[in-house]
Amino acid sequence: MVKEVHHIGILVSNLDEATRLYQDCFGAEVGRTEILAERGVKAAVLSLAHGPKLELLEPLPDSNMAKILEKRGEGLHHITFEVDDVDKELSRLSELGVELIDKKARRGLEGMVAFIHPKSLRGVLVELCQRM
Amino acid sequence: MVKEVHHIGILVSNLDEATRLYQDCFGAEVGRTEILAERGVKAAVLSLAHGPKLELLEPLPDSNMAKILEKRGEGLHHITFEVDDVDKELSRLSELGVELIDKKARRGLEGMVAFIHPKSLRGVLVELCQRM
Repeated sequence: MVKEVHHIGILVSNLDEATRLYQDCFGAEVGRTEILAERGVKAAVLSLAHGPKLELLEPLPDSNMAKILEKRGEGLHHITFEVDDVDKELSRLSELGVELIDKKARRGLEGMVAFIHPKSLRGVLVELCQRM
Repeated sequence: MVKEVHHIGILVSNLDEATRLYQDCFGAEVGRTEILAERGVKAAVLSLAHGPKLELLEPLPDSNMAKILEKRGEGLHHITFEVDDVDKELSRLSELGVELIDKKARRGLEGMVAFIHPKSLRGVLVELCQRM
């Protein structure tokens, strides 16, 4: 079962500009910035006063994410739910007929993660994450 | 300043089906369902074990939201940030050059609310809300 929303992913064309904007507009505090080559993005994690963080994502050149940005523009990209055990949830969802992107949990920015296909979830790209 | 994410809005074509899906997949609990004629939607609020809720939105026939659904399909629609004073934040954002959809707070499902234009926020439709 899902415990809570862990973070919300936002696709942007320029990470520095977007980070400054969200700082200025909403008082978000910028944590680390990392290049996640496997996902084709440069990512910055922004904290609000409480609760789920915002993850701003700038596509790396020639990545799949760059194509998604070109096609769909900037905006909300995914939501991440925290669970106790990603692999257990993947099995349960698979039994319900939900289409998975990742068949097994893999190492992500903040623990073990896996993505679920948006076509099984009313167009929403959902990531599951399990803190390590 | 923003305190935290209050909820995440998801646009769906069929509220009953989407609600059942999110219950089955993620253990979300369904709260009230309401028709928000002003916003052109039927909305259901879903709670996870902790933290921000999910707001599923089905467009009413012939509404502006029905056109958005037709154009963009189902998926993530907006995020709502909780603030102490919506009107004060609107003034501050306006001074920063951010384009507002609502110039003043108005009564919403769970308090006073206002929407900010996505073109000022990297394609993200942001709602501010202040609990009453």
